[in-house]
Amino acid sequence: MSFNIEQNGKKRVVIVGGGFGGLQLANKLRGSGLQVVLIDKNNYHQFPPLIYQIASAGIEPSAIAFPFRKMFKHRRDFYYRMAEARAVFPEQKILQTSIGKVKYDYLVFAAGTTTNFYGNKHIEEEAIPMKTLSEAMGLRNALLGNLERSVTCATEQERRELLNIVIVGGGATGIEIAGAIAEMRRYVLPKDYPELHGENLNIHLIEASDRLLSGMSQQSSSKVKEFLEGMGVNVMLGCRVTDYADHRVMLADGTSIPTRSFIWVSGVRANTVGNLPEASIGRGGRIKVDAFNRVEGMEDVFCIGDQCIMTADPAYPGGHPQLAQVAIQQGNLLAANLRRLVRGEEMQPFTYRNLGSMATVGRNRAVAEFASFKTQGWFAWLLWLVVHLRSILGVRNKIAVLFSWLWDYISYGHSIRLIVYARKAKEVIDREEREARVHWGEDLRQQEGSGNRE
Amino acid sequence: MSFNIEQNGKKRVVIVGGGFGGLQLANKLRGSGLQVVLIDKNNYHQFPPLIYQIASAGIEPSAIAFPFRKMFKHRRDFYYRMAEARAVFPEQKILQTSIGKVKYDYLVFAAGTTTNFYGNKHIEEEAIPMKTLSEAMGLRNALLGNLERSVTCATEQERRELLNIVIVGGGATGIEIAGAIAEMRRYVLPKDYPELHGENLNIHLIEASDRLLSGMSQQSSSKVKEFLEGMGVNVMLGCRVTDYADHRVMLADGTSIPTRSFIWVSGVRANTVGNLPEASIGRGGRIKVDAFNRVEGMEDVFCIGDQCIMTADPAYPGGHPQLAQVAIQQGNLLAANLRRLVRGEEMQPFTYRNLGSMATVGRNRAVAEFASFKTQGWFAWLLWLVVHLRSILGVRNKIAVLFSWLWDYISYGHSIRLIVYARKAKEVIDREEREARVHWGEDLRQQEGSGNRE
Repeated sequence: MSFNIEQNGKKRVVIVGGGFGGLQLANKLRGSGLQVVLIDKNNYHQFPPLIYQIASAGIEPSAIAFPFRKMFKHRRDFYYRMAEARAVFPEQKILQTSIGKVKYDYLVFAAGTTTNFYGNKHIEEEAIPMKTLSEAMGLRNALLGNLERSVTCATEQERRELLNIVIVGGGATGIEIAGAIAEMRRYVLPKDYPELHGENLNIHLIEASDRLLSGMSQQSSSKVKEFLEGMGVNVMLGCRVTDYADHRVMLADGTSIPTRSFIWVSGVRANTVGNLPEASIGRGGRIKVDAFNRVEGMEDVFCIGDQCIMTADPAYPGGHPQLAQVAIQQGNLLAANLRRLVRGEEMQPFTYRNLGSMATVGRNRAVAEFASFKTQGWFAWLLWLVVHLRSILGVRNKIAVLFSWLWDYISYGHSIRLIVYARKAKEVIDREEREARVHWGEDLRQQEGSGNRE
Repeated sequence: MSFNIEQNGKKRVVIVGGGFGGLQLANKLRGSGLQVVLIDKNNYHQFPPLIYQIASAGIEPSAIAFPFRKMFKHRRDFYYRMAEARAVFPEQKILQTSIGKVKYDYLVFAAGTTTNFYGNKHIEEEAIPMKTLSEAMGLRNALLGNLERSVTCATEQERRELLNIVIVGGGATGIEIAGAIAEMRRYVLPKDYPELHGENLNIHLIEASDRLLSGMSQQSSSKVKEFLEGMGVNVMLGCRVTDYADHRVMLADGTSIPTRSFIWVSGVRANTVGNLPEASIGRGGRIKVDAFNRVEGMEDVFCIGDQCIMTADPAYPGGHPQLAQVAIQQGNLLAANLRRLVRGEEMQPFTYRNLGSMATVGRNRAVAEFASFKTQGWFAWLLWLVVHLRSILGVRNKIAVLFSWLWDYISYGHSIRLIVYARKAKEVIDREEREARVHWGEDLRQQEGSGNRE
């Protein structure tokens, strides 16, 4: 395996990850004279703010996924490669990946974060995360499958486990999926499962701190709690999960909740890269960068978005919140700064401009905060819809999402109630097993020993 | 696990399979006074005629899948259960399934067919079938994944394997997927994969008999061959596949074609049911039925659609073709006949009314045959679109499919070019492993020993 890219005398920027930050950077480098190589393990960009709606059967996965090759089809000297980054070798200016090594002039990590299980192996093995499109599709399958089973299961004990849904994490993702499931319970369940005879799902939302949405104001937190409780969600604040065993979520106070739908959206840690100096790794595994998003202690290596932590911005001495807006603004600035570097000019430092934040728990219920005003309820919900619809890439996907929303708003439905898995071809299974074996340590040895074409 | 259905003194019809036949039957039994229990291993009805468009990234899976519970949500005394039928015990009038046993008054098998590998284990393990939504999603992932790999693979040999697509079977499915891939090659590949520098996919369509579409007229066969060859598909007639090994499709004439995209749509065999009398199984594993779709040698057990073979229809002494129309008409008649049975009237025998047949290989290219006329090309293609759009269940899905078709017709795109798998939750993996172990033989013993509630 090799990258098969000729450099043609141009300087090459290798971008790891095509999320909000990486994509913005790649887009803004158009016409810069730099060769761009984008690496992502998926062949599509996904739109995280709506991933919970995949899980709650509201929209189809294709509506919030956009293939990279389609996005960049008219772009010259741009290369997409489906691969995972393994390790960086700064002396040789080489990035080792799952498909071989690639030389870089500038390397940008924009690989984001992954679910943080805080070292608990039981939880990592059994809980259902909801960070990616694949995970959300898996969650949809699990939720609907558990409903089917609740109708036919053998014991009362099992039925209780199947009809309890436990969501751990009271951030935006947690409150959004809790709200979406509560709506499904209200509008879909009585029609789809008359066999349950009023027996109902119990939705528990567990948060360790003393309020939901800790990134927003106290006022929004309270309002969201009020919304969710009004929708019948059991909001448990100041409650810590210690373990999961025998289909029971164990809590710090010694009690437990039986469940087979154990959704874990409690926190993230930055994706790791092999061979980075230990001193450059900060809180939550985030890579420490200076005001220009340069990785501390390295040359020509940058990191943007959720994967990095920057303490140089005076307004955010503890680092920026891990939000799309930060990633987009950093991607934007870095594109400009790389152009400056090439021209021999000085780079400009990053300062975050907070455009506000919002979260929704269902139809007509949302909270939104901006520099100048806060709003809650119907108007906030409308704002939420407009802002997110505008942010989705591509006219086709915008139409698909808008159509799904309108349809479901009118029909009170969650239309995509399918339990479906893609059947893996034998060849794919073989390949995945093989690739799973390639760790960066092995690659390092291979790299030294072999004469792989690049 | 148990069915948990009270019978309430009504007679119960158990329908195995919610395809065209089973669904038609279930719908037409509305208001019959019969209790209906529908069993399907998927929680949705799928629309097979468009499954190839999932594989070729033209439409999203949700557009041709319709959840059973949504379909029957206002229906009284109707029960859907997600389960697989294992075996029938006619003396006790019991059907054993993956979720336990269910008593029936009338039992109807409408479980259709599965891919026939004609006993070749290598082919069964390695080839990619395309009979179900899941398989088509898997095929889409495999085709797109192989394209990605062709850009980065290590050897010329591997690249050749990745860029050869071999489709075995020249029936409707085979010519439709061949045409769809040929269109993708023409309109999408040059834009998405400029790295291939004109290196191209080779599409081979292999058929053992001397013509394509053997179910249609010689004229249509010739026209489809002309269409496909005009689109650059290598049509190989009178060519038999003997094996697949080391990424090579072996042919009867001693030659072979290297490929990692080995698509097998060469034939079907009926899905099996345990404990049926051997004498009632006919050609292709199809269950022999009389003119009233009663399974030979059994009482109150019926079989309709592709899964059965009826030789009593004078116009079709060798059995009907395995087409949607036959299944729908049989489902229709059986609903009427069951109502007659209940009223103590005589049943009516089945005669098939051939409404014509059609197949398409791409934009503006199709063949259609009716009792009174044949047509080919643009008009046949338009007919094909209208007929299929009308047949898709549900307004929402009709709109979704029409939108996808219009978009792709205008943009020459295959928009859903995603490589995406649903991540399986641990609980689901456990359950599937457990269920895979339950064979009908074991169930028989369980059934005799245990006192399962029904």
